[in-house]
Amino acid sequence: MAVYTHLGAEELSRLIAHYDVGELVSAKGIAEGVSNSNWLIETSGAEGQGARFILTMYERRIELSDLPYFLGLLDHLSAKGCPVPRTIHDSAGAAYRMEQGKAVALIEFLPGVSPTQPSPDQAHAVGQVLAEMHLCSGDFTRSRANTMGFADNLAVLEKCGAQGLASINADLPAMIQHAHKAAALDMGALPQANIHADLFPDNVLMLGSEVTGLIDFYFACTGAMALDLATTHAAWCFDGANGYNADLGRAMVAGYESVRPLTDKERAILPDIAKGAALRFVASRAEDWLDTPDDALVTRKDPMEFAQRWHVYDELGEKAFSRA
Amino acid sequence: MAVYTHLGAEELSRLIAHYDVGELVSAKGIAEGVSNSNWLIETSGAEGQGARFILTMYERRIELSDLPYFLGLLDHLSAKGCPVPRTIHDSAGAAYRMEQGKAVALIEFLPGVSPTQPSPDQAHAVGQVLAEMHLCSGDFTRSRANTMGFADNLAVLEKCGAQGLASINADLPAMIQHAHKAAALDMGALPQANIHADLFPDNVLMLGSEVTGLIDFYFACTGAMALDLATTHAAWCFDGANGYNADLGRAMVAGYESVRPLTDKERAILPDIAKGAALRFVASRAEDWLDTPDDALVTRKDPMEFAQRWHVYDELGEKAFSRA
Repeated sequence: MAVYTHLGAEELSRLIAHYDVGELVSAKGIAEGVSNSNWLIETSGAEGQGARFILTMYERRIELSDLPYFLGLLDHLSAKGCPVPRTIHDSAGAAYRMEQGKAVALIEFLPGVSPTQPSPDQAHAVGQVLAEMHLCSGDFTRSRANTMGFADNLAVLEKCGAQGLASINADLPAMIQHAHKAAALDMGALPQANIHADLFPDNVLMLGSEVTGLIDFYFACTGAMALDLATTHAAWCFDGANGYNADLGRAMVAGYESVRPLTDKERAILPDIAKGAALRFVASRAEDWLDTPDDALVTRKDPMEFAQRWHVYDELGEKAFSRA
Repeated sequence: MAVYTHLGAEELSRLIAHYDVGELVSAKGIAEGVSNSNWLIETSGAEGQGARFILTMYERRIELSDLPYFLGLLDHLSAKGCPVPRTIHDSAGAAYRMEQGKAVALIEFLPGVSPTQPSPDQAHAVGQVLAEMHLCSGDFTRSRANTMGFADNLAVLEKCGAQGLASINADLPAMIQHAHKAAALDMGALPQANIHADLFPDNVLMLGSEVTGLIDFYFACTGAMALDLATTHAAWCFDGANGYNADLGRAMVAGYESVRPLTDKERAILPDIAKGAALRFVASRAEDWLDTPDDALVTRKDPMEFAQRWHVYDELGEKAFSRA
């Protein structure tokens, strides 16, 4: 969470002049995004009405060649009425521009705040909007492979090694074997769409129990819709003490199925997918943990949080994805 | 520049409910302020019209007992039409509240962006608004001593020591003697008011060459108006290569004197005050430099930047503060 690049008022004004949004009125660097710099921008508006935008500068981890997919998907979903921010194109029609050698995009500002302790009503609403998004994303013409798929997670855990993982926690080396099982799942046989793939509460804006925005699509990819539901479930349905909250789980699945009922095949495999989804965060956090010196000023996320969630899904099985 | 404390949507909503500003619509942590956490907050507004505020949480360096001075000064100046953000008082009339053991205040949002390469027109406008502020602040009934005065700078430099200073740059030990001279200046004999005392371009919001906001009054104190002009001059009138820009200096002084002409006494002593003002940043930066390990992830500001400015004021003398 940081602003990595300094863009002065004069640079921002010049940049904004390439868009038909009026003149720069305000710009605040905001503490969002782990691999981007972001500014909340206000302009005088195209027709004299104040307008607000998020200006994103892509700093690292994001491949330039992926931007047409990410930004195009936002436009595709927004045009179909999904609550995602559309991309503002510049006067020449481009979805992004280059500034100081980095790509920047101007993105619609959406109201709402991200819940930290979601309620069942909020989980229901998120399930519903996720299913709506899936129904709208299937006919998007671009595609992108999941670079954080189950085989990738396995590779990351194997790179950490049993010894490295054991140095974090004795429970972690076993996760390598579990990741082997996840990597063997036939995800391609499940119904596909373009999925968000990282829908943590941080990436959802809400007003009360209404979803006003799904944001931060920078892990979006073409893949199994069940993976998106399982990842969202694993990200939302645990309490502050990391215990499973069945009310949230039931509400989310009911919300999802109110729009798109799960197939029998999806329902049967969802517990295994959820375990695989939990392993993704075990793997990435373990890798960061081992890469980050103990005394660094950076907060490391604990890989055990999602190892514990793996065990919850292992114990609950299909119960975690039942509506009742 | 960071958000030091996490406040979730639910906590922010509860906090906002103590003010008559409607309901929370959006909250973004912003990368401003070196000793505070700040959020740009949007609410539904008192009368159904959207309204924006800066929510500030005071983290460190700020004494709770100073808040009535800082926040009261904003209200005093705002009521007199100065472009400073007023404090929003809670429903019980309090200017600040306690949250998680820390003081928080809700402050008016003002439009505008901070110039990084000011133009003479902008320097003129800032000089003018600074003088207007001085004329309005004199009858504010509270007072606060300058904790970064010339005697304080001397103490900081002496604490660094000649050897410590020499380890940064061979030019720095001589600054201790210069600080002795500054500490001997009779500042109390000059016209007094309540002054901003830290008016770097970062702390000024502008639209074109109009000043829309003076912000970040957390060094404000009761003191010589000439010190405020000299500090602002030292902060604004140098270019990207740290060379003195006489056009900016002349414009700022002309802007200031268009509202409040300097007295002969002020004019004669201003070059010495400017040298003292430069020493303040030499001292605080040298202290930070020596306190921060070489390999820390924090960017240290170079004390030599203001040591060079000290030499400029030493060479230019009264010329730096002439209008023509």
